[in-house]
Amino acid sequence: MQKVNPRTLSGFLELLPSEQIIFNTMKEKVEKVLRNNGLCCVDTPVLELSEILLAKAGGETEKQIFRFNKGDTDMTMRFDLTVPLAKYVSLYKNSLTFPFRRYAIGKVFRGERPQKGRLREFYQCDADIIGDGDLPLQADADVISILSQIYKELEVDAKILVSNRKILIGVLSEFNLEDKQNEILGILDKFEKIGKQNCYDEVKNIAGEFTDSIFEVFEKKTIEELKDSQIKNQIYLDGVNELEMLFNLLNAMQVENVILDLKIIRGLDYYTGTVFEGRLKEFPSISIGGGGRYENLTQYFSNSSMPGVGFGMGLTRLFVLLKELGKLSFDKQTYSKVAIIPLGETENFCFKLASDLREKNISCQVLYSKSFKSRMNMANKLGVPYIIVVGEDEVKTGVFGVKNMLTGETKKVSLQEIVKNL
Amino acid sequence: MQKVNPRTLSGFLELLPSEQIIFNTMKEKVEKVLRNNGLCCVDTPVLELSEILLAKAGGETEKQIFRFNKGDTDMTMRFDLTVPLAKYVSLYKNSLTFPFRRYAIGKVFRGERPQKGRLREFYQCDADIIGDGDLPLQADADVISILSQIYKELEVDAKILVSNRKILIGVLSEFNLEDKQNEILGILDKFEKIGKQNCYDEVKNIAGEFTDSIFEVFEKKTIEELKDSQIKNQIYLDGVNELEMLFNLLNAMQVENVILDLKIIRGLDYYTGTVFEGRLKEFPSISIGGGGRYENLTQYFSNSSMPGVGFGMGLTRLFVLLKELGKLSFDKQTYSKVAIIPLGETENFCFKLASDLREKNISCQVLYSKSFKSRMNMANKLGVPYIIVVGEDEVKTGVFGVKNMLTGETKKVSLQEIVKNL
Repeated sequence: MQKVNPRTLSGFLELLPSEQIIFNTMKEKVEKVLRNNGLCCVDTPVLELSEILLAKAGGETEKQIFRFNKGDTDMTMRFDLTVPLAKYVSLYKNSLTFPFRRYAIGKVFRGERPQKGRLREFYQCDADIIGDGDLPLQADADVISILSQIYKELEVDAKILVSNRKILIGVLSEFNLEDKQNEILGILDKFEKIGKQNCYDEVKNIAGEFTDSIFEVFEKKTIEELKDSQIKNQIYLDGVNELEMLFNLLNAMQVENVILDLKIIRGLDYYTGTVFEGRLKEFPSISIGGGGRYENLTQYFSNSSMPGVGFGMGLTRLFVLLKELGKLSFDKQTYSKVAIIPLGETENFCFKLASDLREKNISCQVLYSKSFKSRMNMANKLGVPYIIVVGEDEVKTGVFGVKNMLTGETKKVSLQEIVKNL
Repeated sequence: MQKVNPRTLSGFLELLPSEQIIFNTMKEKVEKVLRNNGLCCVDTPVLELSEILLAKAGGETEKQIFRFNKGDTDMTMRFDLTVPLAKYVSLYKNSLTFPFRRYAIGKVFRGERPQKGRLREFYQCDADIIGDGDLPLQADADVISILSQIYKELEVDAKILVSNRKILIGVLSEFNLEDKQNEILGILDKFEKIGKQNCYDEVKNIAGEFTDSIFEVFEKKTIEELKDSQIKNQIYLDGVNELEMLFNLLNAMQVENVILDLKIIRGLDYYTGTVFEGRLKEFPSISIGGGGRYENLTQYFSNSSMPGVGFGMGLTRLFVLLKELGKLSFDKQTYSKVAIIPLGETENFCFKLASDLREKNISCQVLYSKSFKSRMNMANKLGVPYIIVVGEDEVKTGVFGVKNMLTGETKKVSLQEIVKNL
């Protein structure tokens, strides 16, 4: 028979069992935090009508998608979890309870040209709180607190940089630069990338004499410094006020590692107030999740006003990053806590033992490859923490040798003690 | 702004939060059983090269897929989890430990014309044990035991019908009907659908005088009856022998609700020995999962001989079925166990309380919509089991009224007691 050469599409990550177990553990920790915060899960389809997914998109997005026709239908694979959420909320509004707290964890697809480090399929995790008509600032604090809890649960050493876009918008409006707003914010957004001098020069080309005043605010580091500014227009004051309230709330929620940083801008449009971004201590310039407040989630689908606040984090990307940093150890190929190894004619007994352990929620498997030696080999390769060899003596006496594979130590115990100790 | 009418592609199921919570619980119970049995998770891409996914497929499959070109690449969305597994095992064979115990739970896509009850996107759950060169019959018992544990965990009243294809193949070979084998097995496979008389008549058209002898074996119900048969060729005896050993192993594993039933054939090719199918007690003709033993998983991708045994179950389909049967109750829109409702200026205290409860792994949220009334409404709509209203008295005394929303009863307790009781 002609064989097909087995291979995976480039840009599509596939993990070995030992890696998959670690990735799943990460995913489950994230999910636990989200649920502990009362967010419910929304699982929308991978495929949607192109008209829906591209309701908002511009030219760049259209190039970077998997889009095709099936029959008369123009379909696209989801490239994020935000547009599907907007559709979902518009569609099921009457069945939902607002503020609507939802999370979604799922694969998203980017049809860009494959290149090193760029994934075309990856897990995205989104968390959002959506209001119907209005949404208090408490929601902003809530989602930042959730992101912080996720980092803590993952034991990732991260800080969250927080700003409010109204502050810089207020500054620009003070100098009548409203019509240059997007251009200037776009340059300021590149501060970390291009360095202070380049950034300053580029802004100066547009803002001229006001550049020093802009940078004076831009580099402020505390609420007090922001309050001391000469700028007093309403949008600036609103921004400072919201930011102050936000930090007070975060303090009440016992959220640590949040830092005021006006350099967090996050793109040109969409966000309207609070913006924030998580940064790994080891790589302070790489974002590991971020988001903010937006005016209206459903503007492309309905006339309702539905403000929201939320964040997204690339789970697969975070996994790859932590792996590259050597922060993950891949020492197990199995969820089994115990491997039961029959010696002689004890197999049926072993299966019963396994079934008893599973009743007590202890993950285990019986190893039944041909030779005793191959069974021991398998236990070693799998990285099972404990093994129990069951010979005829063990069956007779009901006393088992449980070997801790890490320490090499063997303890003689009864079935009850096995269940208690594991 | 021109609005886009929000809608979801037909055949793509989308759940409300209360349904999603139940579906997720089902999925997690299934996953718990699979992991307790030492299966590791393999998560392959949604998109693969068409050449890979269609290595085995025939004409019918090709019509029922989502296939498209991106650049020069011909891609297809996965329509099952078996072909991706075959590719995965071929590709990473040297890094895996055999017998390789894996599960996969993921969305699969069928490009068929949308029609009532047919889903084009659904969750499939697969469990397989793959051998390298050989695989003992213990693996067959292992996977049937796993399926049975899943039904038990889901509290689904099901039985598992078990057969071995070698038995009927042996019968046909006894009467020199080998070249009519697929045709006759195809008719016998329809027994439940078309009824005994039609089935008998159709077989008679092909098998003539041997039809009665075929049906005599076909309707046997015990190993003893099968052993008493006149038929003594090797493949028949192998089949009976394997089935007997299998039932002995299942007995040792304390698997209940397995029933010998030769009417379980499961398609024409692929399976070569043990075959089995789960049936709901309420709908004994509907399959809720099934599988069997196959000769070689990787035949389209490599020259290795890799026998396997496994099953697939349509998780979304099972959910829809149980929902239609009224077996599921959708009474919660949230994972929160507790809603904390501030009364007066106690919000910051409430956020701290929530953070303390989450530290103890108690899922909760603070309700901060505008009025006290709207907060109470929200708690009711969400279906949160417990609420705690925190006024200034509670902050002062540290004694909280925890209301059980099911019984209506309120208990006055301290923070420690809340943590202990919930």
